[in-house]
Amino acid sequence: MPDPRFFKAQGPFSLAELAARTDARLHEGADPTRMLHDVAPLESAGPRDVSFLDNKLYVDAFRESGAGACVVHQSRVAIAPAGMALLISDQPYRAYALIAQMFYPRTPPSGGIAAGAHVHPTAKIGAETSVGPGAMVGAGAEIGARCAIGANAVIGEGVVVGDDTDIGVCASVRYAMIGRRCIIFAGARIGEDGFGFAPDQAGHVKVPQLGRVIVEDDVEIGANTTIDRGAGPDTIIGAGTRIDNLVQIGHNVRIGRGCIIIAQAGISGSTRLEDYVVVAAQGGLIGHLTIGKGARIGAQSGIMRDVPAGVSVFGSPALPVKQYFRQLVTLARLAKKERE
Amino acid sequence: MPDPRFFKAQGPFSLAELAARTDARLHEGADPTRMLHDVAPLESAGPRDVSFLDNKLYVDAFRESGAGACVVHQSRVAIAPAGMALLISDQPYRAYALIAQMFYPRTPPSGGIAAGAHVHPTAKIGAETSVGPGAMVGAGAEIGARCAIGANAVIGEGVVVGDDTDIGVCASVRYAMIGRRCIIFAGARIGEDGFGFAPDQAGHVKVPQLGRVIVEDDVEIGANTTIDRGAGPDTIIGAGTRIDNLVQIGHNVRIGRGCIIIAQAGISGSTRLEDYVVVAAQGGLIGHLTIGKGARIGAQSGIMRDVPAGVSVFGSPALPVKQYFRQLVTLARLAKKERE
Amino acid sequence: MPDPRFFKAQGPFSLAELAARTDARLHEGADPTRMLHDVAPLESAGPRDVSFLDNKLYVDAFRESGAGACVVHQSRVAIAPAGMALLISDQPYRAYALIAQMFYPRTPPSGGIAAGAHVHPTAKIGAETSVGPGAMVGAGAEIGARCAIGANAVIGEGVVVGDDTDIGVCASVRYAMIGRRCIIFAGARIGEDGFGFAPDQAGHVKVPQLGRVIVEDDVEIGANTTIDRGAGPDTIIGAGTRIDNLVQIGHNVRIGRGCIIIAQAGISGSTRLEDYVVVAAQGGLIGHLTIGKGARIGAQSGIMRDVPAGVSVFGSPALPVKQYFRQLVTLARLAKKERE
Repeated sequence: MPDPRFFKAQGPFSLAELAARTDARLHEGADPTRMLHDVAPLESAGPRDVSFLDNKLYVDAFRESGAGACVVHQSRVAIAPAGMALLISDQPYRAYALIAQMFYPRTPPSGGIAAGAHVHPTAKIGAETSVGPGAMVGAGAEIGARCAIGANAVIGEGVVVGDDTDIGVCASVRYAMIGRRCIIFAGARIGEDGFGFAPDQAGHVKVPQLGRVIVEDDVEIGANTTIDRGAGPDTIIGAGTRIDNLVQIGHNVRIGRGCIIIAQAGISGSTRLEDYVVVAAQGGLIGHLTIGKGARIGAQSGIMRDVPAGVSVFGSPALPVKQYFRQLVTLARLAKKERE
Repeated sequence: MPDPRFFKAQGPFSLAELAARTDARLHEGADPTRMLHDVAPLESAGPRDVSFLDNKLYVDAFRESGAGACVVHQSRVAIAPAGMALLISDQPYRAYALIAQMFYPRTPPSGGIAAGAHVHPTAKIGAETSVGPGAMVGAGAEIGARCAIGANAVIGEGVVVGDDTDIGVCASVRYAMIGRRCIIFAGARIGEDGFGFAPDQAGHVKVPQLGRVIVEDDVEIGANTTIDRGAGPDTIIGAGTRIDNLVQIGHNVRIGRGCIIIAQAGISGSTRLEDYVVVAAQGGLIGHLTIGKGARIGAQSGIMRDVPAGVSVFGSPALPVKQYFRQLVTLARLAKKERE
Repeated sequence: MPDPRFFKAQGPFSLAELAARTDARLHEGADPTRMLHDVAPLESAGPRDVSFLDNKLYVDAFRESGAGACVVHQSRVAIAPAGMALLISDQPYRAYALIAQMFYPRTPPSGGIAAGAHVHPTAKIGAETSVGPGAMVGAGAEIGARCAIGANAVIGEGVVVGDDTDIGVCASVRYAMIGRRCIIFAGARIGEDGFGFAPDQAGHVKVPQLGRVIVEDDVEIGANTTIDRGAGPDTIIGAGTRIDNLVQIGHNVRIGRGCIIIAQAGISGSTRLEDYVVVAAQGGLIGHLTIGKGARIGAQSGIMRDVPAGVSVFGSPALPVKQYFRQLVTLARLAKKERE
């Protein structure tokens, strides 16, 4: 059971309710009125808990699990332990995620501006929105309804934040328009100056950065991630994109819908990612590239050229995955041969 | 036009004023009294705007641009559209930067200590300096004139900040002396302990870090970048150096004048960069190295040895650029041959 | 001498006191009652200072040093300058660290809750603990004795912090249990959501992150480092582990005792490090791995498989060190040969 110091479960919910919320159907013999009280991993789940099986590493744990109910793929039904109620889904992890959200929904903002918050008189704060202690909301900013602005966060002048968005503690958002249902985690820096200057040994000359950061709906931005505002055009993060911690996004970058950018990756100025691109951890892209729809950039890979849609690349500098690993095999063989 | 929510142009300025401020000269036929009202990219500029052509990728946009005036190199004059006033410069991007600064100068600090700032009674705050809400200035700190200390920033005890310097929101500066006309962006961490300890499986023993961070004049330090203070000697950032976001600078590092350190690069303890060194994104340098004047470290490159002045290196571990790419070509050929 | 603006030495201490605190013994002729007033590097130390020799790069500085006393290995005695008192140690750097801690111990917290701190009425604050201006301590949090909570730091609801722990300025700690004698540096983000969601082009589905971060005793966590809380299990940092700046630790990661994780390294979800593992700067580990006791991961190395105990690996993807460098040599030879 999650530590009650930090998490309080909603519910209980009946099997019928869980099935209705997900794409799952109840397997034969499962009692739709059976109540479930919590989610738990297969190893620790008891008769009041619902769990899930997705990764095949956990098949043995599934066989021996004491979970009252479990979300599984049709193909696993035969090996389920006796007495376990099964929710059959083609996407068990997705179904589990929805169920876990039923038990642990987003905490609704408490509402109200804390003592010790610094809200400019011209800022607009939506209904049921909370502003935490020490948080600052600048002149003319507009915060939607049911948002939570964390303690010591800073929302700059003129910034717009959509409904139901959370701004993490100690995060800052300036020169930006943020969509609805976004989560910006602690310490993220949205809208600082892009790294723009005319290099000159007599003294680099700063180029004023006159664009914004546009974050569309349903985006998550990880802790201590930095997204610079555009130099003239805007920096744009497409709807539904997920960005992990400590990621760097340079000025004028345009990221499409549903992209996944994993921790410590970096995207240089003016590069464009089409929809559903994945950049794995510590990957790096130089500027002014186009990465096609659904392309996948490997961990620590270095991208110096455009990547076509749907292609997976790996290495630094990156090559198509098969070609890269073939070269590794060739090199290993030659080194071994030379030694013999 | 930049979003007026965030940016307000100064001006207008005459062509003569723009030419006088830069190294540009007016091309024949340009009316020196013509007034320009804003800067804009070639694609969107209109008759009241001034634009620039630098990167050859934009030559076509230049041919078709509706900009009232444009900064260009002498060699582009022949292809300019009719009616466009030309400012001829050997460094068009630098000239544009200066012009953009005329329209969009640094916002002068509003002056005054915000309600909700925490300024120690023994701290000295210079004339016309602003301290934002929630910002903390410690005992004995000395802040120069016309500085802006952002909301929720922390300036530690005894820190000295020169005139006309901006400290970003949520940034912290401790055990440090900061020069004039610097910009430290949001969330940067200047002056935390270096990573110093005597390793011991019975318990690593911390070594007190007794140096400072010295940041000379005209330095920029990016968002969420970390610069540790020295262990005994100081960590030093030379005048005019530009450091991007999420960069790590270890204790005792000495960086020369006018260096450029791009996002997510890391420089380990006691390494020295001479003047005008460039470290590209995600590059890493081990400790105790010397990187010669004007050397260039490629993106994601790993530097394990000294680099002589003026040399460009690439790869991890890094080699001189030509040698590195020659090896890549050899490997590709051998892999292909083996497959045939 | 360290800048007195920032550092004030304790002492003086006699040679006998210094020897007693460390594992050192006084060399013949050293007067145990001789008083030392400060620590200093070999180059600048004077007769009132104690210094040390560890790295052989500094042997010449040792020969010429004016230090009144010096910690050295037995093997260096013969080359010591005349008149220098010698403290003989098998671990000179460790002994020096302990001596430097005598002169520069942790600053005891001033005690008391600053005006402008935001401490929830239900939070418990231990004896002699300081809470800085603008710091926030949430409902039900329990802070031990003699802690220092830095200015503008955020301690979330229900968080527990052990005795003698320092939380840096602008750091945040949520959903976490922190041990005794820890140091969490400025801007670190402990306990934000793990990067967990069911990928789906129709909209990624967030998986609630229901675990905590457990930080055991004597841990240091660097500036702007991010440690996500577990998805269900906890994320665990073992006793005595040292983590540098800008490191990313994913959800469910378990790190053993006494590990060393250097700047900008990243460890993906559910990976386990046994005791005394070293991950060098910018190293990256994918998820669900086990890294054996005392293994060493090279700088910028990419780990895609388990690493056995005691093994050193290098490269991306990583290989055992000798094998990796043998391949580099082979490639260099082939490239040279092809060119001839």
